Amino acid sequence: MKMRIENVLIVDPVKGEFTGDVLLESGKIKSISPRELKKYDAILMPGFVDPHTHGCAGIDTMKMSKEELGKWENFLYSQGVTAFLPTTVSANEKDMIHVSTLVGEYIKERTSTSVYGIHYEGPYINVGKKGAQNQKTIRNATAKEMENVLYPHVRLITMAPEVGGFYDVLPRLKENGTVISLGHTDANFLDMKRAFLNGVDRITHFPNAIKSLHHRELGGVGAGFYLDFNVEMIVDGVHLAPEFVDMVYRTKGAGKIMLITDSIEAAVLKDGKYDLGGLKVSVKDGKATLSNGSLAGSTLLFGQAVKNFKRFTNCSLKELSRVSSYNTAINLKIKNIGRIKEGYKANLVLLDKELNVSKTYLSGEIVYER
Amino acid sequence: MKMRIENVLIVDPVKGEFTGDVLLESGKIKSISPRELKKYDAILMPGFVDPHTHGCAGIDTMKMSKEELGKWENFLYSQGVTAFLPTTVSANEKDMIHVSTLVGEYIKERTSTSVYGIHYEGPYINVGKKGAQNQKTIRNATAKEMENVLYPHVRLITMAPEVGGFYDVLPRLKENGTVISLGHTDANFLDMKRAFLNGVDRITHFPNAIKSLHHRELGGVGAGFYLDFNVEMIVDGVHLAPEFVDMVYRTKGAGKIMLITDSIEAAVLKDGKYDLGGLKVSVKDGKATLSNGSLAGSTLLFGQAVKNFKRFTNCSLKELSRVSSYNTAINLKIKNIGRIKEGYKANLVLLDKELNVSKTYLSGEIVYER
Repeated sequence: MKMRIENVLIVDPVKGEFTGDVLLESGKIKSISPRELKKYDAILMPGFVDPHTHGCAGIDTMKMSKEELGKWENFLYSQGVTAFLPTTVSANEKDMIHVSTLVGEYIKERTSTSVYGIHYEGPYINVGKKGAQNQKTIRNATAKEMENVLYPHVRLITMAPEVGGFYDVLPRLKENGTVISLGHTDANFLDMKRAFLNGVDRITHFPNAIKSLHHRELGGVGAGFYLDFNVEMIVDGVHLAPEFVDMVYRTKGAGKIMLITDSIEAAVLKDGKYDLGGLKVSVKDGKATLSNGSLAGSTLLFGQAVKNFKRFTNCSLKELSRVSSYNTAINLKIKNIGRIKEGYKANLVLLDKELNVSKTYLSGEIVYER
Repeated sequence: MKMRIENVLIVDPVKGEFTGDVLLESGKIKSISPRELKKYDAILMPGFVDPHTHGCAGIDTMKMSKEELGKWENFLYSQGVTAFLPTTVSANEKDMIHVSTLVGEYIKERTSTSVYGIHYEGPYINVGKKGAQNQKTIRNATAKEMENVLYPHVRLITMAPEVGGFYDVLPRLKENGTVISLGHTDANFLDMKRAFLNGVDRITHFPNAIKSLHHRELGGVGAGFYLDFNVEMIVDGVHLAPEFVDMVYRTKGAGKIMLITDSIEAAVLKDGKYDLGGLKVSVKDGKATLSNGSLAGSTLLFGQAVKNFKRFTNCSLKELSRVSSYNTAINLKIKNIGRIKEGYKANLVLLDKELNVSKTYLSGEIVYER
């Protein structure tokens, strides 16, 4: 099956921006034809990638059925998302295995899906930086537990480097191809640096739930700025001041930032009371908090995150395609997505000039049309 | 009177590094002769400028006689310093006038001196961020008081923008040519930004005694990083972690950093008990603290600050000349110093390759020789 996308501004995170047409065939990008255009109809970017989302529209990673995961996937097409990792919260071994098995089966049963695996956010984190994670399930990592909870599709795991077992399980995680992200951590600068020098170069929802910057002890925040970490960011305008987002952009550059939503089931739904891993969450004006005021995930949608980042930083579209897809694809070693390039999977998003999602393509098929 | 400095690496903060000779005549740089050299004997840089020092070698701005100021000036030649501002601590009006009068007379009595005026550090600061400033003398600024304490040679004043009177006295300070530096302040990001937009683009001993960075309220630290502020830094390895210094260098660039010592009378002297504006200061292993543990100025010498900055950041010599002289000269609008350029004052420092001071020139005269 063939499809031609014509008269568009093509935005590739490596080659940059140029006008022309793109031919899709058999689920892949068959050819790209740059062509001078006086004006273009739409913007074509690699489909967005969200490596950190707990749910939306009443669906929650920890409680969902396969049918619900299907609905979730479908909903995310409307956001231009063509790859995402359902993300757990700290849980016991049994629940982790349950979710992983479900997601694994879901992927196996489909020839084409935007579900690319799972992200374990915890439970091997620091209780002192638990944020909206259930304290009861937070624990050290052990080699034995890894044998039970690791699957090939566990692509990402958020851990605190100062919590017991971190260095013990590191080789096993690497062997499994699981990328480690530092988060919910009270690690000081030297602990962060040690992890970095051991190849762990990623930080979860920077700088939320990590040790703050001090000029004599730089903490996790200082490590994030000073060392060459790749950082997730929740760009909803609530978790981070717009100026902070811009500061990270100016300091580290678009090459080191990965947009995430960190959304919970309340996203898309009305304000009200919800549940996150056994904790009561109250949502007001789209802001999700625990009773103690801690932020509890977000109600951010990916399409909005992309618009916000553009607005907060005034970055180029090329840079925008880096933070919304390419960087995460590279970081998680997912091949053949995140670029508009011959031979790459035809996972694409078509945007209007205000960056609203008009159409989404998954493996060359239109899966969303406004 | 003529003098020729030959076979040196000339380091100009604008033109950069090149080998050759420099001819001095009548106190000025008469000519510069670039010349290819296989090897050079020494490094010639603009004489160092310290805009923030309370004293050294038992001499204290608040208590010194003119004779002591002369001794201080002489001592600083050994550090390559050819311009400095004796700096007060928060004090009552009478003491401020006394010091200003003394410094004013001292300058007037000399045809050539490295004393370029005075820096009032306070008293118009925030009590909550007083650091080692005497709380009793901290107060709001008033138009009336300005009439009493302002002299043409008051070149610099450290103030907190959130403290009463700041915006009232701003026009008078500008008119007097007094540069305002934000410091000892609990101002939030917006307060800092407001001051910045009103032309106050300088921060005192960044980021000591200002509001820390938070990702939802960037504070003074965030403002320092995010906005185009010029920042003083105490690069003694005690006030700031070396990585923090390097982070500021990488983020803001050498063009926005001004080295200072913030030294107190204990500098050069042995460890022991000292006094700073009526507060008891204890010095151990060169680290000066109040009884509550607060840092109380430094025992840093300028020559060491220059070496430290080079070591912490691995900057170029051109950049080193920016942070050690040029930036401060430009910032304080002092003309004809801070460059190695025809017509500029022959205030120079000759360094060996380990950056030890070998010779210091003031108005073309050798005032120090190792």
